[in-house]
Amino acid sequence: MSSHHIVRDDQEPALIIANGASCSLELLGQLLEWSPVVVVLDSAIERVLPLDIKIDVLLGDFDNNFNPEIYAEKQFPLQIVHTPNQDKTDLEKAFDYLIEKGHKAVNVVWATGKRADHTITNITNIVRYRNKLKIVILDDHSKIFLLPNTFEKWYPAHTPLSLIPIGKVTQIKTENLFYPLHNEELTIGYRTGSSNHVTKDGIVKIEHAEGDLLLMECFD
Amino acid sequence: MSSHHIVRDDQEPALIIANGASCSLELLGQLLEWSPVVVVLDSAIERVLPLDIKIDVLLGDFDNNFNPEIYAEKQFPLQIVHTPNQDKTDLEKAFDYLIEKGHKAVNVVWATGKRADHTITNITNIVRYRNKLKIVILDDHSKIFLLPNTFEKWYPAHTPLSLIPIGKVTQIKTENLFYPLHNEELTIGYRTGSSNHVTKDGIVKIEHAEGDLLLMECFD
Repeated sequence: MSSHHIVRDDQEPALIIANGASCSLELLGQLLEWSPVVVVLDSAIERVLPLDIKIDVLLGDFDNNFNPEIYAEKQFPLQIVHTPNQDKTDLEKAFDYLIEKGHKAVNVVWATGKRADHTITNITNIVRYRNKLKIVILDDHSKIFLLPNTFEKWYPAHTPLSLIPIGKVTQIKTENLFYPLHNEELTIGYRTGSSNHVTKDGIVKIEHAEGDLLLMECFD
Repeated sequence: MSSHHIVRDDQEPALIIANGASCSLELLGQLLEWSPVVVVLDSAIERVLPLDIKIDVLLGDFDNNFNPEIYAEKQFPLQIVHTPNQDKTDLEKAFDYLIEKGHKAVNVVWATGKRADHTITNITNIVRYRNKLKIVILDDHSKIFLLPNTFEKWYPAHTPLSLIPIGKVTQIKTENLFYPLHNEELTIGYRTGSSNHVTKDGIVKIEHAEGDLLLMECFD
């Protein structure tokens, strides 16, 4: 059993383990290093238990005859949060739960892969949590987050960066990207900024006026 | 070597093998059964060759010191299509190639998984080929296609169906779905119709007025 629950101040991002494809143990280990609150969604717990991680919250609608109580003893203390509302995904309910508990940031793994409907819904739905929760979705090939209207970060040359508009995004301006945008518009399905990359070691600046723009740091 | 190239009339959907995560051999075998024209994208050929499939077209920008000519003999006759244009993805260029050759329909595998930027771009970009090419993206958990304004198909009860708007889609009306829509709007990132399902054995009808609406038949 990991001892990560000994030191914890809830200032670190929480960690949600969703129900898509599993990520590498290396990525999971990196995210667990900072002793986050760990929330597991529904039946994903059956895949998480063998990994010997201390789980803090088990959340889901628990349909399909799933009985969460059998995990309460194995993972004591484990908070079981039953969220039967069918208007939201389990991932959204986990975001709502963390916001209610005062969390400001969360990393999410296992939210991609397997079913494409879940993947696209999990990725695109983070935009509605703007200003409420800083969400980063990670898998073995991707790091995904919503951009503020002005974003600046240092990257090494050649880092692949993709700008994915969720809907329409206006007046996008970039600095230090190989395919620069000059006050241009991107629209999902019609024009996206996928497969761009950083020109030279240094600050990348990305600005936009309106709309929801995701940044994806992806690698093969 | 498969003998699928013996009978071929180009009326069957072509098959594109893209560069994401591999699918099961069972799915691939089903799609190859009808002797499609097989187009492989760029370095994916290195993963396709061991599968003993007759490849007809190898298409890509062939960067990263990739030499396509070494495959020309192994897969004779193999058409090599060099598409250096960086404004489009290799998958879009393959769609353009098939349209130019008079194809009306295509199935696409290995277009999802691995990098999230490629997955979301591949899935959402099919909307711009409306009326030009009937595209179906398949993986081991998903079948994805663009809906016409009126769509009717027979499904067994409980089939999971997800309605994913690429942008905003207006006046959506459904029949025989468990969570019905009555002239409602869906917007990516804000309100999608993910994780619906068929109520009873029979015709499902889905209508919409404007916008691009994907149907995803997904299963765990």
